[in-house]
Amino acid sequence: MKNLKDMQNERDTRCISIDRVGVRGVRFPIVVSDKANRTQNTVATVALMVDLPQEYKGTHMSRFVEALHDEGEGPRRLNIHTALRLPNRLLEKLSAQRAHVEIAFPFFRLKKAPVSGMEGMMDYDVRFVIDAERGGKSQFTLTIKVPVTTLCPCSKAMSTHGAHNQRGIVTYSVRFVGPPIWIEDLIDMIEECASCSLYSILKRPDEKFVTDHAYEHPVFVEDLVRNVAVATENHTAFSWYRVEAENFESIHNHNAYACIERSLTD
Amino acid sequence: MKNLKDMQNERDTRCISIDRVGVRGVRFPIVVSDKANRTQNTVATVALMVDLPQEYKGTHMSRFVEALHDEGEGPRRLNIHTALRLPNRLLEKLSAQRAHVEIAFPFFRLKKAPVSGMEGMMDYDVRFVIDAERGGKSQFTLTIKVPVTTLCPCSKAMSTHGAHNQRGIVTYSVRFVGPPIWIEDLIDMIEECASCSLYSILKRPDEKFVTDHAYEHPVFVEDLVRNVAVATENHTAFSWYRVEAENFESIHNHNAYACIERSLTD
Amino acid sequence: MKNLKDMQNERDTRCISIDRVGVRGVRFPIVVSDKANRTQNTVATVALMVDLPQEYKGTHMSRFVEALHDEGEGPRRLNIHTALRLPNRLLEKLSAQRAHVEIAFPFFRLKKAPVSGMEGMMDYDVRFVIDAERGGKSQFTLTIKVPVTTLCPCSKAMSTHGAHNQRGIVTYSVRFVGPPIWIEDLIDMIEECASCSLYSILKRPDEKFVTDHAYEHPVFVEDLVRNVAVATENHTAFSWYRVEAENFESIHNHNAYACIERSLTD
Amino acid sequence: MKNLKDMQNERDTRCISIDRVGVRGVRFPIVVSDKANRTQNTVATVALMVDLPQEYKGTHMSRFVEALHDEGEGPRRLNIHTALRLPNRLLEKLSAQRAHVEIAFPFFRLKKAPVSGMEGMMDYDVRFVIDAERGGKSQFTLTIKVPVTTLCPCSKAMSTHGAHNQRGIVTYSVRFVGPPIWIEDLIDMIEECASCSLYSILKRPDEKFVTDHAYEHPVFVEDLVRNVAVATENHTAFSWYRVEAENFESIHNHNAYACIERSLTD
Repeated sequence: MKNLKDMQNERDTRCISIDRVGVRGVRFPIVVSDKANRTQNTVATVALMVDLPQEYKGTHMSRFVEALHDEGEGPRRLNIHTALRLPNRLLEKLSAQRAHVEIAFPFFRLKKAPVSGMEGMMDYDVRFVIDAERGGKSQFTLTIKVPVTTLCPCSKAMSTHGAHNQRGIVTYSVRFVGPPIWIEDLIDMIEECASCSLYSILKRPDEKFVTDHAYEHPVFVEDLVRNVAVATENHTAFSWYRVEAENFESIHNHNAYACIERSLTD
Repeated sequence: MKNLKDMQNERDTRCISIDRVGVRGVRFPIVVSDKANRTQNTVATVALMVDLPQEYKGTHMSRFVEALHDEGEGPRRLNIHTALRLPNRLLEKLSAQRAHVEIAFPFFRLKKAPVSGMEGMMDYDVRFVIDAERGGKSQFTLTIKVPVTTLCPCSKAMSTHGAHNQRGIVTYSVRFVGPPIWIEDLIDMIEECASCSLYSILKRPDEKFVTDHAYEHPVFVEDLVRNVAVATENHTAFSWYRVEAENFESIHNHNAYACIERSLTD
Repeated sequence: MKNLKDMQNERDTRCISIDRVGVRGVRFPIVVSDKANRTQNTVATVALMVDLPQEYKGTHMSRFVEALHDEGEGPRRLNIHTALRLPNRLLEKLSAQRAHVEIAFPFFRLKKAPVSGMEGMMDYDVRFVIDAERGGKSQFTLTIKVPVTTLCPCSKAMSTHGAHNQRGIVTYSVRFVGPPIWIEDLIDMIEECASCSLYSILKRPDEKFVTDHAYEHPVFVEDLVRNVAVATENHTAFSWYRVEAENFESIHNHNAYACIERSLTD
Repeated sequence: MKNLKDMQNERDTRCISIDRVGVRGVRFPIVVSDKANRTQNTVATVALMVDLPQEYKGTHMSRFVEALHDEGEGPRRLNIHTALRLPNRLLEKLSAQRAHVEIAFPFFRLKKAPVSGMEGMMDYDVRFVIDAERGGKSQFTLTIKVPVTTLCPCSKAMSTHGAHNQRGIVTYSVRFVGPPIWIEDLIDMIEECASCSLYSILKRPDEKFVTDHAYEHPVFVEDLVRNVAVATENHTAFSWYRVEAENFESIHNHNAYACIERSLTD
C-alpha cells in the first residue's frame, strides 16, 4: 500500500510564491448583527485564502474549511465576531503571512411603507472582505448593494407627462476609521440619495406617494453617485469609499453606470 | 494493454429506458436568417439529446458533437436549415427513436430611433427547440425574449405627475401552422403590445417621444400578456403559444409576472 | 387630486383569462425542518401566483407579499408548515381558483468524512412547488440538487491508470403518495447511486478513500439516472419522479446529461 | 411645450468629479482576428466609460453607443482594429480625459483530437480592456479563460488506483511589451501547464490518451498557476500578468483557487 505522504509539504523549486490560494464557493449558515432584533440568521458564501511562500509545493485545503467550522462551532453558527477572527485563524493554521476572507450574504430588514405603514421585508446583498497580515493590522471592507428607484431629470424636463424611471443598484463599499457602523444606517444613507427607495409592500396610497416622490427627486446615475459621495464625505466614520450605480434603463436594453472611488485619509 | 471495448453497447439489465441523454452547453458559431440582410452571424449554445432504449448501457456522446460538426461543415458554420436537419442526423447516428435539439443565440437588429431616425443595434435572445420522432413529424418551437418598457396604469391614475415604469421582458414561445414567420415580425408584434419599445440610441427628441408614448400607453403585466395573446390569436400563423411577461418593478425589489399558454388547433 | 381608484377591479373586455399572475424573486428568511436538529434557518427565494379570470383587469400584487408576511409572522419566520398554507391563503385573499407557490432555498447538513469522521457542512439546493385548486387537493413537488462524483466506466476500462471523473449534479424531483420523507433520506438515496458522494472536509485518509471508492464504482450519466430510478421505484413513498443528471466532464468543455421521468401511480 | 434643454451640460456644484460614467451590457456583433482563418464572427458584450469633470452635471449617454456604431459601420461589424480606436473616439465625442473600454466575447477554435485527429470546436471566453488617457498612451489588457483538466497529485500518490480529477478554469490576463500575440498561442501555452487540455470530440483512443496523459501530469491548483507563471516569465512578450486557476473539485462542493500577479517591467 502506498503511504499517505504529505506532498503539499514537499519543496517547490520554481521559485514563485503564490499571492492567494484557498477555497471559494463555500456556503455556510451565519448569524449577523441586526439593529432591530440584535441578530438575524442568513446564509453566506465564503472564500478563504492565504499566501504561499515559494518553497512550499502546496497549501492544505482541508484546513481552510476546518477554520470555518472552528469558528462556527458551539451554536454551530458563524457570526460576525467569529468571522472577524477567521483571518488570524488561517494565518496560524496555515503558517501564512497574509490572509484574505470574503463573506457574502443577503441581509434582511423590515421596512414600513411610507403612508400605510405596512411592514414588508427588504433584502440587500452584503459582503465583508477582511485582509490580514501576520503581526500587522487587518483591513475590513464592507460592501452593500442597495436597490433604488431612479427617475431621469432630462426625460422629466422634456416630456409632457412623467419621466422614464427604473430600478437601479447602488454598490457601496466602505472602510471605517473606527468601529463599523450599522448596515441599516448605511442603507438609510444611500436610499436618501436616490429618487425614491424601494419597498416590499405598497398599498395604493403608498404607490401614489412613491410615484410622486420619485418625480420630485429626479437623479441621473451621475447625481446618484455624487449624492452618495457627498453623504460619505460629510460623515466622519469612513477612511475610504467606492460607490457604483447601475440603472437598468427602462428605455434601453443596456445599463447606465457611474463610479467614484476616494481615499479620505489624506 | 486493456482493449478499447465499447462499453456503451453492453446490455443493461435494469429495464429502464432513458427519456433524454446527450450533451448540453456546447457553444458553436451559427448563421441565422435575417429579414434585412439575408443572414447574420451569431453564437449559439446547443443541447443535443436522444432517447435510449432499456437494453443499452450507454449512448455515444462523441457522435452528438460530430453531428453538429457534420451540419456545420463547408463554410464551417451552422445555419438554420442545417440546424433543422440535426434531429434526423441524431436519429440516424445514434439509432434513436426520438431526438431533442435546443439552439439558443442572441439575434441582432438595427432599429431606427422614433424621431431622429438614428440607427442602433438591438439584441434579442432567441431559442429554437426541435423535437423529432423516427418516421414521424418534427415539432419546431421558437422562443424570443423581447425587452420592453411598461408603465403602470394604477400609478398613472393615482399620481400627481408621471407613473412608475420599468424594463420588462416578454418571453414569447410559438409553434407554427405552416412555415415559420420572420423573427423581426414577431418582435414588431410584441413591441406594439407594451407601453413603449426599447432603443439602443435615443437623442433628446427621441427620449421625449418614448417618455410621452409610454405615458399614453400604460399596461399592467396582465395587459401586456393579454395584448400579446390577442395579437397571436388574431394571426393565422400559429398553432400554439405561451407568453410570459416579467417586469423589473422600479418601486419593488421583486418582479411582477404573468403567463398565458394556449393551443390554437382545437 | 386624482382619486385612488382600484383599476385592477375594472372589467376587462379582451375575454382572455390569465393562467398565472403574481410575484417572483422575493427573498425571505425561512425555517425548515431538519432531521438532526429539528429545524434550521435558511433563506428562500419565493414565487407566488394565482389565475385571473377573464373579466378582471388585474390582480392585487401587494396581497401576494402580504400573504407571505401573514404566514411569516410571530417568530417572523416562514416555516414549512406555514409555507404549505400559503396557496390557500392566496386563494382566499385574491379570490382565485388556482394558486402556484415556489420556495427555493439552500439546505445544510453536517456530514462526517468517511474515514477520519471529521464533520463538514454540505449544502444542497432545495425547491418546494405547491399547486392548489379551490376546493381541490393540492400537489406538492419537492426538488433537490445533489452534487456527486462520477467516474467514467469507459475511461476506466480503456486506460492504463485511473479514469476521468468530475463533479456532477443530480436534480431529483418527487411527489409523495403520503407524507413527505426527510430531505436527508432523499440525499442519502441519491448519493449512493453515484461513484462517490461529496464532502466538505477530507483529510488525507479520507481523500484516499473517496478516490478508491469512486474508482470501484464507475457510472455513466446514464447509470446514475437509472440507479436513482431503480431506488425510487423500489421505494413506496413516491407517486411520480423525474431525475436529471449533468456531469461537468473533466475532459470536455460541455456537459453530459440524462433524464428519466415516470408516473408511479398507474 | 417644454424645450428640449441639455441638462447634462448644466453646471454641477457638488465639486465631485466622477471616475467612470457610461454604459454597460451593450451586446454587439464583432469580427476578431483568427490565426487559422484570418477572422471569425462572434458576439461581444461591451462597456464604454469616460471620466466626468466636477463642473458637469452629466455625460451624454447616447454618444457612447454612437461611438460603437461609428466604428462598427461599413460592413456594420466591429473588428479588433476599430475596437482599439474606440477609446480615442470616446475621448473626442465626450471631451473626456480618460476612457475605459471592455469588450468580452467567446472565441472559437477548431482543435484536433490527440489520436484520431478528429476536429472539434472549442470555445474560450476572451476580454479586451483598453484604458486610454488624452494625449497619453493607452493600455491594453487581454484576459482569456482556458478550461483544462487538473488531476490531484496527492490523490494519485495515496490511492490504489487513479486520482480525482476535474474541470478547472485558468483565467489569464496579460499586458504586452510590444504588439499582442495570437490568442491561439496564449491558449497553447496555458493548456500545456495543466494535467491535460480539453477537447470537443474524443473517440475511444483519444479518451484513453487524455485519461493516461492527465494521470501522468498531475497538478495542484498551485502547480497550475506556477506553471503558467514560469511560462509567462520565460516569454519576452509580456509586461504584466495575472493568472488565476479555479478547480471545480470532483470530491467537494466548493472550488480550489490560486492566484499570482506580477509586473515584469522592473
